Amino acid sequence: MVDIDNDSLSEFLASAVHAAQKAGEIIRKGFYQTKHVEHKGQVDLVTETDKACEELIFNHLKQLYPTHKFIGEETTAAYGTSELTDEPTWIVDPLDGTTNFVHGFPFVCVSIGLTIGKIPTIGVVYNPIINELFTGIRGKGAFLNGNPIKVSSQTELISSLLATEVGTKRDKETVDESTNRIKSLLFKVRSLRMSGSCALNLCGIACGRLDIFFELGFGGPWDVAGGAVIVREAGGVVFDPSGADFDITSQRVAASNPFLKDAFVDALRHMV
Amino acid sequence: MVDIDNDSLSEFLASAVHAAQKAGEIIRKGFYQTKHVEHKGQVDLVTETDKACEELIFNHLKQLYPTHKFIGEETTAAYGTSELTDEPTWIVDPLDGTTNFVHGFPFVCVSIGLTIGKIPTIGVVYNPIINELFTGIRGKGAFLNGNPIKVSSQTELISSLLATEVGTKRDKETVDESTNRIKSLLFKVRSLRMSGSCALNLCGIACGRLDIFFELGFGGPWDVAGGAVIVREAGGVVFDPSGADFDITSQRVAASNPFLKDAFVDALRHMV
Repeated sequence: MVDIDNDSLSEFLASAVHAAQKAGEIIRKGFYQTKHVEHKGQVDLVTETDKACEELIFNHLKQLYPTHKFIGEETTAAYGTSELTDEPTWIVDPLDGTTNFVHGFPFVCVSIGLTIGKIPTIGVVYNPIINELFTGIRGKGAFLNGNPIKVSSQTELISSLLATEVGTKRDKETVDESTNRIKSLLFKVRSLRMSGSCALNLCGIACGRLDIFFELGFGGPWDVAGGAVIVREAGGVVFDPSGADFDITSQRVAASNPFLKDAFVDALRHMV
Repeated sequence: MVDIDNDSLSEFLASAVHAAQKAGEIIRKGFYQTKHVEHKGQVDLVTETDKACEELIFNHLKQLYPTHKFIGEETTAAYGTSELTDEPTWIVDPLDGTTNFVHGFPFVCVSIGLTIGKIPTIGVVYNPIINELFTGIRGKGAFLNGNPIKVSSQTELISSLLATEVGTKRDKETVDESTNRIKSLLFKVRSLRMSGSCALNLCGIACGRLDIFFELGFGGPWDVAGGAVIVREAGGVVFDPSGADFDITSQRVAASNPFLKDAFVDALRHMV
């Protein structure tokens, strides 16, 4: 494990926040433009915004930390997956919630995570449209716009607000499985929210707006690297929907406060 | 039909906005308190906030318009349904999205509608948490925070963002029907959002964030009276999910831009 002191962690966080805010400006500009271009133009605008944000964030962080590793959604799409090592590694989703971005639905964000020894250590998730900045440093707490946040104190599944997503795959098997899970869970929870951003769902758990969240088959580690730190530092737990340990590379995630985990895993049993 | 001039309509809107903003202050205060009280306290806080907001709005409007009629969620819960007549009638949901309110999920709103000759004529929907004020006057356009809004220009169902809700009923028949509808629709649309507020879903259609929305079995006319004006004035259509005319008292609503209506009704056929 690389040894890194607290001062460095605080500096890493400040650098990530700076990069996220700069990228947020680009997203904000595009968000209010998508309505005024035709469909082909919208697709281009997403791609351009995605690429411009990832470049901006990577350039900013690479200049400051030339020895660190980088994994980004756009770079991975272009050059294939980079293996996650023990080295300090920035894992970036420059624009989470691209469908929301195209439609102007205000749940979009930049997600930046830093793993050290494969452990999510710094998390920054920034929604530039409703101006919410979620941050966390391992061992140092989680914050929303600078104010400490914590997970909900809910102990009963039946009173819990569940979040999940239907993803982008529309083959019969995927849709059947996901709607069957929803059907089964509806009898066990209070209600269901779908907002279209994995990173913001994790932050919803962290600040107690949501009690339980799971998602299967999302894009990659960039959707969860930032949010995982924020949930844990807010007193929550991040785990595999089966109840096993969370694997950042598995495209499977669940999160809740510590009281609800067992009942939630039980409710998901045989379905995930 | 009661004859009412444009000046009066503008004055009615201004009065409704004023009442909504005052109620919004109460909601905002409660919203940030719910986390700090135990479960029983949360239920009381919802009830108190609901009642305080409805009283405030009704008192404000009754003083200005003593001859008008009033229908409110809280009043109806306490005294039973009042019949909708041709008289100018204020239809008020003092707090739409009560589950969101309890959990601190930022989709809550005040919804105020005025019907004249049973036709929704004034609409005010105000989300005091993310500070979005939607307004509309029949024949005079729809606005978000004072800026004109219009529905999306989407023409293809397969590229559309759908919103619906799972409601509060959890008997097997209701859950089966609603998840079967979701399953069937997922093959026909781009993605699905559930945000927990009927009035805000209508406003999402009005400002083009959402392309198609339907809900069955919501609380009452107060959930749709304000939003219906706003959708129509933004160039959208409000109709029964079967494709029939919208009936404000039916607890059934669908909304979209005009291009998508037929395909949407077709997708919902035999299911609603």
